[in-house]
Amino acid sequence: MSTSRSYGDPSGIARSLDVVGERWGLLVVRDLLPGPKQFSDLLAGLPGISPNVLSKRLRELVEGGVVDYQDLGAPDRVRVYELTEWGRDLEPVLRHLEQWGQRAPLPPAGPPSR
Amino acid sequence: MSTSRSYGDPSGIARSLDVVGERWGLLVVRDLLPGPKQFSDLLAGLPGISPNVLSKRLRELVEGGVVDYQDLGAPDRVRVYELTEWGRDLEPVLRHLEQWGQRAPLPPAGPPSR
Repeated sequence: MSTSRSYGDPSGIARSLDVVGERWGLLVVRDLLPGPKQFSDLLAGLPGISPNVLSKRLRELVEGGVVDYQDLGAPDRVRVYELTEWGRDLEPVLRHLEQWGQRAPLPPAGPPSR
Repeated sequence: MSTSRSYGDPSGIARSLDVVGERWGLLVVRDLLPGPKQFSDLLAGLPGISPNVLSKRLRELVEGGVVDYQDLGAPDRVRVYELTEWGRDLEPVLRHLEQWGQRAPLPPAGPPSR
């Protein structure tokens, strides 16, 4: 059973946000679009996220069917996360957000607010 | 000065989410796409949102340049909120989220989780 919150709204937009709308969710999807990544790579690419929040978000995205993972055997013995096909279908959403955001203010200097 | 959080990430996606990514933000934009609305209409259309959160979100969206408002004089004496041109430019994001969300699970029965 899903552990994430729901808007309780049957519209497609609300149901999408139930799956990927929590803080950092769409940025994790953005960073997996180029290809599979390990947890440490994702963590390094999102300076403001804590390991706990990244773990929770990945767990929700896996539960939601947006991300999948593989545990690579020897010699690496690491877990690699990747988008599912449905996850990759978010590309147009991210493309339009990227365009729209060009007119948004640049972030304030200093560390991101959690 | 903006009161909302920032990811501290200069990408267009992160900057978009700094402006409209907080919980309920994109649903308020969705409900203003058809045209201007009063606070009470917005509140009625988002069953899970509290008046305080809606007020905060509207304040942030106005501050962010996504929403504007007019105070109508007599006889109505009400405040009407509407999307700015930049706000309306979010339409493709919402359209793609709506499509993507058709494959997302329907919300659980019962009241939405706050």
